[in-house]
Amino acid sequence: MIKVGIVGGTGYTGVELLRLLAAHPQVALQVITSRADAGTPVSQMFPSLRGYVDLPFTHPDQAHLEKCDLVFFATPSGIAMQQVRALLDAGVKVIDLAADFRLQDVASWEKWYGMSHACPDLVAEAVYGLPEANRSQIKSARLVANPGCYPTAVQLGFIPLLEAGVIEPNSLIADAKSGVSGAGRKAEISILFSEAADNFKAYGVAGHRHLPEIKQGLARAAGKEIGLTFVPHLTPMIRGIHATLYGRLAKEMDLQALFERRYANEPFVDVMPAGSLPETRSVRGANHCRIAVHRPQGGDTVVVLSVIDNLVKGAAGQAVQNMNIMFGLPEATALNNAPLLP
Amino acid sequence: MIKVGIVGGTGYTGVELLRLLAAHPQVALQVITSRADAGTPVSQMFPSLRGYVDLPFTHPDQAHLEKCDLVFFATPSGIAMQQVRALLDAGVKVIDLAADFRLQDVASWEKWYGMSHACPDLVAEAVYGLPEANRSQIKSARLVANPGCYPTAVQLGFIPLLEAGVIEPNSLIADAKSGVSGAGRKAEISILFSEAADNFKAYGVAGHRHLPEIKQGLARAAGKEIGLTFVPHLTPMIRGIHATLYGRLAKEMDLQALFERRYANEPFVDVMPAGSLPETRSVRGANHCRIAVHRPQGGDTVVVLSVIDNLVKGAAGQAVQNMNIMFGLPEATALNNAPLLP
Amino acid sequence: MIKVGIVGGTGYTGVELLRLLAAHPQVALQVITSRADAGTPVSQMFPSLRGYVDLPFTHPDQAHLEKCDLVFFATPSGIAMQQVRALLDAGVKVIDLAADFRLQDVASWEKWYGMSHACPDLVAEAVYGLPEANRSQIKSARLVANPGCYPTAVQLGFIPLLEAGVIEPNSLIADAKSGVSGAGRKAEISILFSEAADNFKAYGVAGHRHLPEIKQGLARAAGKEIGLTFVPHLTPMIRGIHATLYGRLAKEMDLQALFERRYANEPFVDVMPAGSLPETRSVRGANHCRIAVHRPQGGDTVVVLSVIDNLVKGAAGQAVQNMNIMFGLPEATALNNAPLLP
Amino acid sequence: MIKVGIVGGTGYTGVELLRLLAAHPQVALQVITSRADAGTPVSQMFPSLRGYVDLPFTHPDQAHLEKCDLVFFATPSGIAMQQVRALLDAGVKVIDLAADFRLQDVASWEKWYGMSHACPDLVAEAVYGLPEANRSQIKSARLVANPGCYPTAVQLGFIPLLEAGVIEPNSLIADAKSGVSGAGRKAEISILFSEAADNFKAYGVAGHRHLPEIKQGLARAAGKEIGLTFVPHLTPMIRGIHATLYGRLAKEMDLQALFERRYANEPFVDVMPAGSLPETRSVRGANHCRIAVHRPQGGDTVVVLSVIDNLVKGAAGQAVQNMNIMFGLPEATALNNAPLLP
Repeated sequence: MIKVGIVGGTGYTGVELLRLLAAHPQVALQVITSRADAGTPVSQMFPSLRGYVDLPFTHPDQAHLEKCDLVFFATPSGIAMQQVRALLDAGVKVIDLAADFRLQDVASWEKWYGMSHACPDLVAEAVYGLPEANRSQIKSARLVANPGCYPTAVQLGFIPLLEAGVIEPNSLIADAKSGVSGAGRKAEISILFSEAADNFKAYGVAGHRHLPEIKQGLARAAGKEIGLTFVPHLTPMIRGIHATLYGRLAKEMDLQALFERRYANEPFVDVMPAGSLPETRSVRGANHCRIAVHRPQGGDTVVVLSVIDNLVKGAAGQAVQNMNIMFGLPEATALNNAPLLP
Repeated sequence: MIKVGIVGGTGYTGVELLRLLAAHPQVALQVITSRADAGTPVSQMFPSLRGYVDLPFTHPDQAHLEKCDLVFFATPSGIAMQQVRALLDAGVKVIDLAADFRLQDVASWEKWYGMSHACPDLVAEAVYGLPEANRSQIKSARLVANPGCYPTAVQLGFIPLLEAGVIEPNSLIADAKSGVSGAGRKAEISILFSEAADNFKAYGVAGHRHLPEIKQGLARAAGKEIGLTFVPHLTPMIRGIHATLYGRLAKEMDLQALFERRYANEPFVDVMPAGSLPETRSVRGANHCRIAVHRPQGGDTVVVLSVIDNLVKGAAGQAVQNMNIMFGLPEATALNNAPLLP
Repeated sequence: MIKVGIVGGTGYTGVELLRLLAAHPQVALQVITSRADAGTPVSQMFPSLRGYVDLPFTHPDQAHLEKCDLVFFATPSGIAMQQVRALLDAGVKVIDLAADFRLQDVASWEKWYGMSHACPDLVAEAVYGLPEANRSQIKSARLVANPGCYPTAVQLGFIPLLEAGVIEPNSLIADAKSGVSGAGRKAEISILFSEAADNFKAYGVAGHRHLPEIKQGLARAAGKEIGLTFVPHLTPMIRGIHATLYGRLAKEMDLQALFERRYANEPFVDVMPAGSLPETRSVRGANHCRIAVHRPQGGDTVVVLSVIDNLVKGAAGQAVQNMNIMFGLPEATALNNAPLLP
Repeated sequence: MIKVGIVGGTGYTGVELLRLLAAHPQVALQVITSRADAGTPVSQMFPSLRGYVDLPFTHPDQAHLEKCDLVFFATPSGIAMQQVRALLDAGVKVIDLAADFRLQDVASWEKWYGMSHACPDLVAEAVYGLPEANRSQIKSARLVANPGCYPTAVQLGFIPLLEAGVIEPNSLIADAKSGVSGAGRKAEISILFSEAADNFKAYGVAGHRHLPEIKQGLARAAGKEIGLTFVPHLTPMIRGIHATLYGRLAKEMDLQALFERRYANEPFVDVMPAGSLPETRSVRGANHCRIAVHRPQGGDTVVVLSVIDNLVKGAAGQAVQNMNIMFGLPEATALNNAPLLP
């Protein structure tokens, strides 16, 4: 059994991680920390977990995370980097669901996140946890930077095209739409039901923190710098990301075959039949990414549609997938339940 | 392995049954029928099942249901009664998720459902599949009438009070609210998104088909006829039923203890701590019924709050629970995943 | 022109008041106060008002409310009572949309609202602004206590029955469902989109502040104390209240005729045809209350369905209606636009 | 008073037209036709109109539309073209809210709409009713083709850029998101609440009927053929379109000033301050189009955000605006109420 600790279990990625880990046959959940809610049973805050998670939240000072085999950070950015070194030194593996270790360019990270990085050397060691791009490094990693939700959906959609050089890399467009849970479980007016329901809007058009993360990943796939316009939107649903991706065709190729080949062995990327229109609900609660590739009106613009559940493949599910890889378990362990539809 | 067939797999109870059965370790799904969609892969209609259910819909005439160990009817009412006798004669067990066998009073059934019953003798044999009331009969049943969604939520909330004679049985009120999936997957204007979203309404006030079913169950618990006013409402959510139940106190008793005692050994009824306010999302996608009992302002009106997922404990999940009981399996098999929240 | 000031214009009742007053031909909007947002243009916070309201928010200290003819308080409870005396002394009329002057029993008010009342003598003078019960007093009032949203829907539904003595007054039940805007524009986790969407729950079962307000109004209609169980629920829509009311029949009467007679001259109460099922969206954005009365299965339980828009007839619209009455204008001025459906 | 008839009043554009016209001081509503619902009071089908519209639906054969001054067609495409000639011959003006007269290229129309056109000569006469592009022709038109919802949002966003030659016209991208009411009031499974809620998807990627309409309008603005990729999406809200438009910058210009200048005198186009993020709810129920122009990260991709209410500026409101222009009324008559927010 893998002894697992979770730092920061009161947000949506935290409760989702708990839901998934509660069903994991190889995981012994040891401790979940929360400074504000120490002592409160987890299942009191999240009654959905009654009967599944019996732990209370523990104050970070009493958590003894160093006794775990693996610690997940489901915290805001800037927390994990304060604690990771001690854990690694104690032989504990770490998966950070926040952004502290996602950007290899520390200066860029400091600009986008508005703080100094506490351990740039560990950034260099950290492995970006997108299994479809990085599986072998994840296998042996001590520290995994779990990707952001938008970056997961966007990268999985663009990677086959960029690796194959099929589209011009300097004018990519990612028009992405997220359910409101992507904004987190924070007391903010803009994500109140009465503000976000029956409404649609763009945000972060001038610049969103996921932009440099996506660009880093796509540059790696393309083998060179890429140019990307990324416009995220808020859509009135709880879970789900739908990325609509646009690229200019650089050469002719059977796009459907390209995608099918690229993801042939991926357990969680489903290349749908030609002409498909993936819906976010088709992955609700599950770790799948469903993708369809189109070439409207036979023109030279390629359109890729990519959907994930932002809390699963876009966060907690991918973290469990990474854990499975790191610990040599079958990759789909605890991730093999069908999506919830309707 | 239990060889299972499903008649009518294109509605919401059908697809939910498929979701649950796909994860059931003792079930071998043999056939799913649909007259209109014969030949279409199930996963084409429900992409959420891609990778989980590989069968196509089969025309009823080619289904060979008699080779199954168990057949679920996820059909409109009036279908199962045409086919059950032949299946029972062939040694196949049957769980009907529709209403054909729910009312022991055939005349009442014919009035409420507007048709003649095809096999009144089988009605007498059928067992009403509410495990919390009827577990031992279900165990040995050939034919189980799976309860309706409202009847499940309402009965589980009232049963402890009526069995104990704590409330006056002649003036019960059940104010129930259902998500829209309870209306089924039918092309009807009144359940369009643009009609049902951002809207709330009562319906069926003059009389709803679940009224006689609830009264039958409550009378059994009370040991005499009961009087019930039942008002169902449509609320803009996909899944979930919230029943708010009102009864007049007939004698003093520790109500919290009464409920906890009554359901102490029930795997799927969760009596919440005193003062709790169960939310429908706390059971989303799961087979639980969560209940809280209140006595507002210390008055003589008892208020019970009872929530279920109408498609799980209110339909497909309860059907799987009944199957597990009928076949001697652990009752929670394939029903032990935590609800999806948020 | 009536010179109007608004104290506290940043909540939902405030913005709704602005929407309605912007179209009022007899109103000159003078000032809108907000301590936190002084200097910000109203239309920057609420872009829907671009081109309709050109004022910025003004700091309360610079507001010169005493120069207005009428001041609306769209503030949390406890604010208006601090400022009303000075305004009345300056000859300004006041409509308080909060609860400071709703309860004639000051001790009860202090218990339910958890503070001492600053001006009990003005409570005695204040007129409860439910025009259908109190029109003549409102006409000559200096200080109007605008009713709560639930109290409006519940009182309008029960009043005809209680005035006529048709139902037993000691066992009333009001099962009410509100859209989320009723909880206000406050940064609280429980009303986030991701918490409140696709979810249904009861709240305040043990006791809600609107309970004494409703009981006060119903006792007045009945001419004696009444007994009421009031259970509010949160439903995933933005606007709207649906009150489902239950009473035990005390004598026979033509209920439909009773309601039609009682509200024959009311511009904003619509008694729907027998058998109707009013929907909240049928009053969205408008000042109407639509009511239907039922007697299910011919039994002795009367069921009244009453719907309003909580922000209009339940708050800002009723306040404008009261203003129109107080200033001798046609009662429907600026309130005569059809509801928004779908 | 303008004597107005409506053909096909049972859809969402029909009921919205009724809502707006009921408040129009210069309109005398004469007749509303519906074959299926002849005899039914309009307010029975749409209780929101109780007290606002007293007419019943009239069978087309008894409608005497030739006695009207103006007839609106709120019908599916293919109906108006059968009846327009007779009306024009009788001196009646016509506004078609469907697509029969939107495309000047009849062959293209016949391809996209799959039928032969009944009166190609009238197509030539018809004026495309986008006031911001065509006001003077509308003024004298007998027959106005009211634009589609997507075409309105997309054209208003691109026109300033194309007229000024600021972007390359051959690689335009319009990523558009629509509320579900845009799909109409039709009994179809895909737009049921349980299918469309909590879900997001693209549709019509291979080709949507609004594509040629948009291209026709943009070509006119550009003065030459343009290339457009148009991807519409369905988002779980009732009303609203959000168009996110992408163009490649061809030359430097002050984009904010360009938009402000272009729409300086337009009563219904609101160019928001630089950096704004328009929300669909900011135009809910109103005839406004709000637009913001961005140049993310200072790159060469221009991003325009354009929002409308699909049933108002995208249908019924624009039709009333066109009527006002055709009959010499102030253009905002009956269109000057603030949007409904929240």
